[in-house]
Amino acid sequence: MTDKNTQIRLKNRPDSTPSAADFELFHDDMPVAGEGQILCRSLYLSLDPYMRGQISGRHISGAIHPGSVMRGETVSEVVTSNHPDYRPGDLVMHQGGWQSFSVAPAAELSPVDKRITPLSLALGILGMPGLTAYAGMTYLADLKEGDRLVVSAASGAVGSMVGQIARQMGCEVVGIAGADEKCRWLVEEAGFVACINYKTQDLAEGLKETCPNGIDVYFDNVGGDTLEAAMWQLALGARVVLCGLMAQYNTDVIPPGPNPATIIKARATVRGLVVYDFFDKKQEFLDKIIPWVEGGKIKYREDVTDGLENAPAAFVRLMTGKNFGKTIIKF
Amino acid sequence: MTDKNTQIRLKNRPDSTPSAADFELFHDDMPVAGEGQILCRSLYLSLDPYMRGQISGRHISGAIHPGSVMRGETVSEVVTSNHPDYRPGDLVMHQGGWQSFSVAPAAELSPVDKRITPLSLALGILGMPGLTAYAGMTYLADLKEGDRLVVSAASGAVGSMVGQIARQMGCEVVGIAGADEKCRWLVEEAGFVACINYKTQDLAEGLKETCPNGIDVYFDNVGGDTLEAAMWQLALGARVVLCGLMAQYNTDVIPPGPNPATIIKARATVRGLVVYDFFDKKQEFLDKIIPWVEGGKIKYREDVTDGLENAPAAFVRLMTGKNFGKTIIKF
Repeated sequence: MTDKNTQIRLKNRPDSTPSAADFELFHDDMPVAGEGQILCRSLYLSLDPYMRGQISGRHISGAIHPGSVMRGETVSEVVTSNHPDYRPGDLVMHQGGWQSFSVAPAAELSPVDKRITPLSLALGILGMPGLTAYAGMTYLADLKEGDRLVVSAASGAVGSMVGQIARQMGCEVVGIAGADEKCRWLVEEAGFVACINYKTQDLAEGLKETCPNGIDVYFDNVGGDTLEAAMWQLALGARVVLCGLMAQYNTDVIPPGPNPATIIKARATVRGLVVYDFFDKKQEFLDKIIPWVEGGKIKYREDVTDGLENAPAAFVRLMTGKNFGKTIIKF
Repeated sequence: MTDKNTQIRLKNRPDSTPSAADFELFHDDMPVAGEGQILCRSLYLSLDPYMRGQISGRHISGAIHPGSVMRGETVSEVVTSNHPDYRPGDLVMHQGGWQSFSVAPAAELSPVDKRITPLSLALGILGMPGLTAYAGMTYLADLKEGDRLVVSAASGAVGSMVGQIARQMGCEVVGIAGADEKCRWLVEEAGFVACINYKTQDLAEGLKETCPNGIDVYFDNVGGDTLEAAMWQLALGARVVLCGLMAQYNTDVIPPGPNPATIIKARATVRGLVVYDFFDKKQEFLDKIIPWVEGGKIKYREDVTDGLENAPAAFVRLMTGKNFGKTIIKF
C-alpha cells in the first residue's frame, strides 16, 4: 500500500474541446476514514461525457472548479471500514473520483451486485449508462412492437444499450455513429438493422432511407445538428427521449434546438431523461438485464485504459468521439 | 338574393407580414348545388393565424395558391338542399371559405349546436379555437390542482380559453400578451393571476416574478423568443403543449427552437397539439363548456368586422397582433 493518494485535478476550465493539459496529476496525502466512514481503493473509474458539463459549471450535478479533484463513479475495494455494513475486501460502488483512494460514509456506498462479471460492467452496461438506457426504454419511450427506433452516439455505453434493449422489446433499431468500424459492430454484433455514419453520409438522407415511414422513437445523446436532422423525420405520434448533449458540451455558447414545428407536425411527445430520477429502479434493471447479458442477448464494447495518469488523454478521446464502447480507467 | 358570389382570393404570396394588397375581391358566378349537395349563404367567417401558414404553403392542412379563394370556417344558412339531412334555413358550419356563398356535400357540413348564442361563438370559444384549448388542457397538459400555467397569445381565442379552462380546473394562470389593454382584461375579467406585456416588459424577468417556483404547464401559441424564454423557466416535471407558431408564420425562414437542455433539465414532457386529432371530442367539449359560458364562468372577447370586403384588413390586424379577441367577419 502506497502512502500517497494519486489524483487528477482540473487545472484549467477549457472553453472548447478539453486537452490533457487542462488536467494535473497530484500526489496528495492518504485520506483517513473518520467515524462511520470507509476508506476505499479504486479499481475502475468511469469516464462519461457529462463530466464535460461539470467542468463547464452547467451540469445539473454541479460544477468542478480548477484545483478540484475530478469527480466520477468508481468500483472500489474496501480497505478499512468504520461502519458495520462494510468489511475490508468488499467491492463497492460510489463517487470515488479521479483518484486512487477515497473516503466516504456508508450511506454513499453501494455493494457491487455479485452477478456482475467482469467487474467493470458495473460502470457500463450494468451501471449508470445501462440504467439510463433501461429507464428511457421502459419508462419514457412508450415502446410498441415494430417501432423503428433511432439512437445517436449509438456505439457508446448508453446508445448501444438503448438499441439492444429496444431490440429485445421488439423494435427495429437504426444507429447513428461516427465511424464505419462502430457502425459495422452495431449491425453485425449488436443486431441493429442499419447504422448511419454521420461523418461520411448525409444524415437526413440516411434517416429517410433507413426509416422510410419516419422515426417512431428517437433517443438522443448529442443534440445539435443530429437532433435537428432526426426531428424533421419523426413519424406521426413519435416519442423522443432527450438524454445527452454531446454536441454542445465542448462549447460555451448554448446553441438553439429544433424548430417547434417538428414536434407539432408529428404530434410528438418529447421527454427529458436524467438517470438520477431512476436510481430506485436499479435492482429491477439488473434483474432484467443481467440474464440477457449472461444469455448473450446483449453485446458490449469497453474502451479500457490502464493507469489513472492516462485518464486525461482517455477523456479527451471520449470527448472527440475517438473511443469505442464504454470508457473505463483501470487502476 | 344576389346573383353573384363575392369572394376574396389570394393575389400574391407575401414573404413577410401580409398586407391587404395581397388579396383581391372577386364577383364570381353563383355556385349551384349538385346532387347530394347544399348551397349555403355565409353568416360569419372565422379568421385564424393558421391561414398564414396555408398561404406560405407549409400548413399541415395544405397550401393556398395565388388565384385561389381563401379558405376558412363559416357559420352559414342553408339556401337550397339536395340532401334529406338539411333544409333551407338550417344553420350549419363548414369550410365555406372567404366568400358569400358556397356549395358542399352533406358530409362536410355539421349543424350548429342550438345552445350556442351568439352564433359567432361557434367559430370562437365554442368552435375550433375552444376545442383546441379544451383538448390541450384535458388530454395533453396533465393538469394538477395548483399548477402554475402560462399561456402565450393569451387574449386570443385559444389562449383565453386555455387560461380559463385551466383556472376552472384549479390552476393559477399567467398570461403573455402584447398590449396593456389585453393584460388588464385577462386579469380583471378572465381571472388570470397575472399577465406580462412582452412588448413593454422583459419576458424572462416577468416569468421569474410571476412564477417564482417555475412554470408547471406552458401552452404555446407563438414559438420564437417567447417559447425560448418560457422553456428556461420550466419547473421540474413541467408539461409543455406546443400549438401555434405565430412568431414564424410571417417569415419564410424557419427559425430554430429552444436548446434541448431546457427539456432535459426540467424532465419536461413536451407535446405537439393539432386540433384535427380531437374533432371526435367536439360534443364532449360543448357539453362541458357551454354550461360554464352560460354560468358566466368563461369570459370572451370578439373582434367582429362587418363585410367580407374588409376581411383582408382584418386578417392583417390579426397577423400583427392588433386584434383583441376572436377575429370574426360578419356578412
